[in-house]
Amino acid sequence: MAKKKDSVKNEVKNVEKKGNFSTFLLFASIAVVIVSVGALQFYITLTSVPDLPKFDLDTCWGTNCTQNTDIRKFRIVFHEAMLENKRRKFDAYKRAPRVKSLEETSEYGMNSDVLGKIFGDWQFKYKYPERLRYFNQYEHYKTNVQGLDIHYMHVKPKKTNIKVIPLLLLHGWPTSIKEFYESIPLLTTARPGYDFVFELIVPSLPGFGFSQGPVRRGLTSYHIAIVMRNLMERLGHKQFYVHGGNLGHNIGTHMATLFPNQVQGFHTTFPVNFSKIADWLWVIGSLWPSLVSNEFVDRMYPLSDKLAYYLEEFGYLHLQATKPDSIGIALQDSPLGLCAYINDRILSLTDPSNKLREDGGLFNYNTTDLVDNVMIYWSTGSITTALRLYKEIAANQDMEDILAIIPTPVPTWALRPKHELYHSPDYVLRWKYPNLVGVTNLDEGGHYLAFEKPVAFSEDIFKAIDNFLKFKNK
Amino acid sequence: MAKKKDSVKNEVKNVEKKGNFSTFLLFASIAVVIVSVGALQFYITLTSVPDLPKFDLDTCWGTNCTQNTDIRKFRIVFHEAMLENKRRKFDAYKRAPRVKSLEETSEYGMNSDVLGKIFGDWQFKYKYPERLRYFNQYEHYKTNVQGLDIHYMHVKPKKTNIKVIPLLLLHGWPTSIKEFYESIPLLTTARPGYDFVFELIVPSLPGFGFSQGPVRRGLTSYHIAIVMRNLMERLGHKQFYVHGGNLGHNIGTHMATLFPNQVQGFHTTFPVNFSKIADWLWVIGSLWPSLVSNEFVDRMYPLSDKLAYYLEEFGYLHLQATKPDSIGIALQDSPLGLCAYINDRILSLTDPSNKLREDGGLFNYNTTDLVDNVMIYWSTGSITTALRLYKEIAANQDMEDILAIIPTPVPTWALRPKHELYHSPDYVLRWKYPNLVGVTNLDEGGHYLAFEKPVAFSEDIFKAIDNFLKFKNK
Repeated sequence: MAKKKDSVKNEVKNVEKKGNFSTFLLFASIAVVIVSVGALQFYITLTSVPDLPKFDLDTCWGTNCTQNTDIRKFRIVFHEAMLENKRRKFDAYKRAPRVKSLEETSEYGMNSDVLGKIFGDWQFKYKYPERLRYFNQYEHYKTNVQGLDIHYMHVKPKKTNIKVIPLLLLHGWPTSIKEFYESIPLLTTARPGYDFVFELIVPSLPGFGFSQGPVRRGLTSYHIAIVMRNLMERLGHKQFYVHGGNLGHNIGTHMATLFPNQVQGFHTTFPVNFSKIADWLWVIGSLWPSLVSNEFVDRMYPLSDKLAYYLEEFGYLHLQATKPDSIGIALQDSPLGLCAYINDRILSLTDPSNKLREDGGLFNYNTTDLVDNVMIYWSTGSITTALRLYKEIAANQDMEDILAIIPTPVPTWALRPKHELYHSPDYVLRWKYPNLVGVTNLDEGGHYLAFEKPVAFSEDIFKAIDNFLKFKNK
Repeated sequence: MAKKKDSVKNEVKNVEKKGNFSTFLLFASIAVVIVSVGALQFYITLTSVPDLPKFDLDTCWGTNCTQNTDIRKFRIVFHEAMLENKRRKFDAYKRAPRVKSLEETSEYGMNSDVLGKIFGDWQFKYKYPERLRYFNQYEHYKTNVQGLDIHYMHVKPKKTNIKVIPLLLLHGWPTSIKEFYESIPLLTTARPGYDFVFELIVPSLPGFGFSQGPVRRGLTSYHIAIVMRNLMERLGHKQFYVHGGNLGHNIGTHMATLFPNQVQGFHTTFPVNFSKIADWLWVIGSLWPSLVSNEFVDRMYPLSDKLAYYLEEFGYLHLQATKPDSIGIALQDSPLGLCAYINDRILSLTDPSNKLREDGGLFNYNTTDLVDNVMIYWSTGSITTALRLYKEIAANQDMEDILAIIPTPVPTWALRPKHELYHSPDYVLRWKYPNLVGVTNLDEGGHYLAFEKPVAFSEDIFKAIDNFLKFKNK
């Protein structure tokens, strides 16, 4: 009986153990199921591809909605701006010493000595007639698209027997058509090893430089994509190629998403997948970075360093996306302030270490190029209308999120600069661009690559289009 | 035997149940212990009061560290600024139409018509000689404190037999000494029912208006608290009272924390406990808002609305805390831009609904007062040195966090405006100000209360000091 009791006790103990274990198994299974279902649902929510929304392709954004399709020749002039500049810049100079930097770096925003160098060259070395000849060396035009007078350069290659490829070049902020000036001759001249050359269409984005801005709220990046497609059709190009960097990347991506039968290939220097699922992967991936990307682990992580960097650098973005007019008014009115604000962004986002350099990164540019770019905003008084695009994008983020998860079949090529703001690994890019034909990883360059490295940029464009053509003929 | 088997089975079942239950109890207990220990540790970390850090009370922040303790009379002059203004404002006006607002509201930053009204009055109605007489109606002085020429107004009551109380009034950004101009006569005149009157010391903060800014980085809010205490000692006041709103609240709080034997009472119009534990309570409290505060539940929650509001309104703060010089240069150089940037903040933070009004909230102010305030920044070229304070505060946030959890025994009085940016319930204020003698809850007013409602403000100051004196004599 004692034995029996013992055996019962043992059995009870076993059963207790078994009970514990089965309970554990039960709890564990439930937990696994809950987590899996949650993760699956989360994944499905984030990745389920919605239908492409329908957009009105003819919305009028201006006051002049007359459907006039004329193409008018245009020449850049600075006359008024010249006179105003001469006087205003001296005024600005008088007040400039009062904002002497505390440090020899640009940590508080652009260093006053660096600004003095650029502004001094603008004041004393910048030759207006010569710069006008430079700006007008290419053919400029304006035409009314959806109620807005859109400015663009149209540069065709010299007489040639080889294939001519129409290519739309999209700038961003705070650059302009100037971004592509050094690349234009490189792209419109035949190149050994390639049996094609480019016909370039280089527009000013609506509200930027010589293109009109909208007269009411709402014109955001995917609306600009429609304006740009309509511009290309106006010029007789039903099918064409697109390049974009910075905001031009977002607009170009939308063109490839909305018009996959018209865009024959998309080249980007800001190769980022902006979908939420990509963001989540990046965040969750900080637990095990090398699983997310071996190649770019040091460009993507540690996440805390990246977030601290964005916090430090994205004040301009925060203000522009909320109160563009409040800052625009001052920039519109001060050549010195505009020069500082624009070039602080260009120098800082070219390389994060520039802000610790005494020259602020000026070694990478010549001041005439920097002033040329500022002159486009200054002479046209367009900084406020340009800044407003950030507010429109922020206000329409929901649609951006939807478009970001709709893949485009357009063949795509990524030129990835070393110091770009974000990095998406190739397989993440393929979620959005399944026909990612190729990638060039640069060991230099930053957020304004075409402006900073026109030679590497132009070379890569040839390479990309060559691969697009091969891909098409496969 | 069959029965026995059954009974064993039952026993096994019971044991299984018992096993399940005991396992659950075990897990639950462990969970409760872990959560409790975690919460306790979290609470201890957040609330354990560190020793008051030692600060150097004589750090020299300027180039002139000669220990000269002279007090020099000072008069505000606008001569140079006047000439410059007349011309520059017309220039600015010429470019102004190009930044016409998209909407009749101020959602994109200050509306261009609202700005036009203020700027037009500056241009055509603002009488410099008359405004100079107005500014110089009180006695102005400068004295060198810790290497910085500090400007202040010193206003004594007319000959009186009643007790004279020394009171330091601390402005913030983007206001100035102008914030207190309408209150000065109200505070320096005896008032029925009170047996005291005020002797006022109204300084310009270092880098603001007529006070020098530091020549190197690091001068943050608690250093300014030391400068202000040293200024008061220079004027012979070992013991005194302090009022602060906006940034003046932070500086005044630090004075009360660092010099509890000198500050006899602290009056604030920005009654907020900025400690992390208060922040956490606010965030966690969104689960059950009425537990946190019954009275202010609609001013504090829903949290998501508040966070959206901060995101919308705090772009200026983000930029100023990271790149003050980049935006400062333009504001320093453009009277129109400065006027827009400063008054957009004043109007928006007075009442969140102002930005949807056609007049932007202008009904609440007269334009001369708004221009007076801008003139102090414009004529002194001090906007950049003022903006830099935000960067210094952000850079020294760790010390701010430490000081925020060290309670001050100084008797404190809170005047709580309806539209203040943050709200701390009274019991949360008491964590920092255990001797919170009283609170006045206003059903009007916003972030710049002394500027907006000088009568209510002055009344409350009398009431507060009266209660401080009673508290002391208890």
